[in-house]
Amino acid sequence: MSDAFNERLRAAQRRTGSLLCVGLDVDPTRLPHELSQDHHGFRHFVRGIVDATADLVSAYKPNLAFYEAMGEHSYGLLRDTLDAIPAGLITIADAKRGDIGTTAERYASAIFETLGFDAMTVNPYQGSDSVEPYVRDPEHGAFVLCKTSNPGSDDFQNLRSAEEQRPLWELVAQRALTWNAGNNVGLVVGATFPEQLARVRTLAPELPILIPGVGTQGGDAAESARLGAAADGTMAVVNVSRQVLYASAGADWRDAARSEATALRDAMRAAAGASPAGRP
Amino acid sequence: MSDAFNERLRAAQRRTGSLLCVGLDVDPTRLPHELSQDHHGFRHFVRGIVDATADLVSAYKPNLAFYEAMGEHSYGLLRDTLDAIPAGLITIADAKRGDIGTTAERYASAIFETLGFDAMTVNPYQGSDSVEPYVRDPEHGAFVLCKTSNPGSDDFQNLRSAEEQRPLWELVAQRALTWNAGNNVGLVVGATFPEQLARVRTLAPELPILIPGVGTQGGDAAESARLGAAADGTMAVVNVSRQVLYASAGADWRDAARSEATALRDAMRAAAGASPAGRP
Repeated sequence: MSDAFNERLRAAQRRTGSLLCVGLDVDPTRLPHELSQDHHGFRHFVRGIVDATADLVSAYKPNLAFYEAMGEHSYGLLRDTLDAIPAGLITIADAKRGDIGTTAERYASAIFETLGFDAMTVNPYQGSDSVEPYVRDPEHGAFVLCKTSNPGSDDFQNLRSAEEQRPLWELVAQRALTWNAGNNVGLVVGATFPEQLARVRTLAPELPILIPGVGTQGGDAAESARLGAAADGTMAVVNVSRQVLYASAGADWRDAARSEATALRDAMRAAAGASPAGRP
Repeated sequence: MSDAFNERLRAAQRRTGSLLCVGLDVDPTRLPHELSQDHHGFRHFVRGIVDATADLVSAYKPNLAFYEAMGEHSYGLLRDTLDAIPAGLITIADAKRGDIGTTAERYASAIFETLGFDAMTVNPYQGSDSVEPYVRDPEHGAFVLCKTSNPGSDDFQNLRSAEEQRPLWELVAQRALTWNAGNNVGLVVGATFPEQLARVRTLAPELPILIPGVGTQGGDAAESARLGAAADGTMAVVNVSRQVLYASAGADWRDAARSEATALRDAMRAAAGASPAGRP
């Protein structure tokens, strides 16, 4: 794996024909009834979801908060999750880390090297020197928070600069282009803000965009794929978590997850235009 | 411990007579020569530093990045660190977490409940609804990043709002006041920006301010205490990490750390004016 992260992502999306990323936000209290509500059930569930969906997605996004809440089992569960995901699919640590100097280097080392993720989400509030350690290795990617899916993202991200007369989220998108010398920087834009998503795609025609907020939060998968994809139909990483994970709590939970994932992949494939993977 | 976090912090600073917070940024490659460069050495070192400084500080701030970089030992080392810190001293998880809804709830649960920290650092980029889960329980505190100590903090934090004609970091400080209904919100302002520190103290006369950046980064401990303390001489949490931790790599590492911590405490006590704890 010597290619830059953004090219590896593109290759995965082409090969799988899917823009779908399944978010692993595993809540032990929402597991299928047949599983125990503990780390055994957690592990079993992740393996079942990955087995049921691995040929339908190009990426998985484990949400580190849900792992950390498992305390002493956190690290083992993360390792097990990464082991379960087939080679060639992209793994994104949803960590939203941000810090400076040696501290950021430690986070990058923990997530990229010790754990072996391909990419992670990064918070830009502390500025360029806080992002740099996460983008230092071109093989690993950083998805920088730009316009997030929550209503409160208006509070600071929409703040309009007196000098540039542009909102903070646009300035972050613009700055991200300068961080992309290694071809390994992406942005995070919520599916709940389609106008802003379209605008970011215009500002950064080639950067990957990780798009959360589909489903429970109200964003639409197909529209996100259409607005978020680059000209070649790739580079939109549309994340869906609960709609797939918790499609059924009954004995058919694997089939139900597979069925949701299939429908999402197909809807996005039709919407993204061009030729997202696997198609002529 | 039924008091609001900010009152517990004040009480700890008064009782100990110290505004010093020792940051536990433990780098296994920088341990004293007599210790092994692995998790055994890490554990031994933290216990030694805490034993040598516990009567000189009001708080410790474990840096979670350095723990996470220890992989499978991460959780055990964090538990061991928290066990080593005497009751009554404030524990701050330097985590800079930020996320929304159920994810933020998981981080709060992992850090406040599973691990048992008193407080944590939080990144405000995602807005009010991303901060709320961290401040929901008044007994636990959230230090919100405002103006951080790194040079790159200028990139976005200094962005001047067209509407308010004030920089983002001021708007964050102002907003933090509205998040403080439970008397458990603080701010993070780098010692490297004394003017901004003074300004934040004016904008938020009673909020705790966590002040990193002393020592290696160039900030001054006494000046930070003077500018950062509230009218009663408390509420500045001046963090020093490497200057104390790595005062000596020789056999005298405990004494050297103690000596640095004593000098820092005394310099800050003299500078903070009023009566930070223990003094008439």
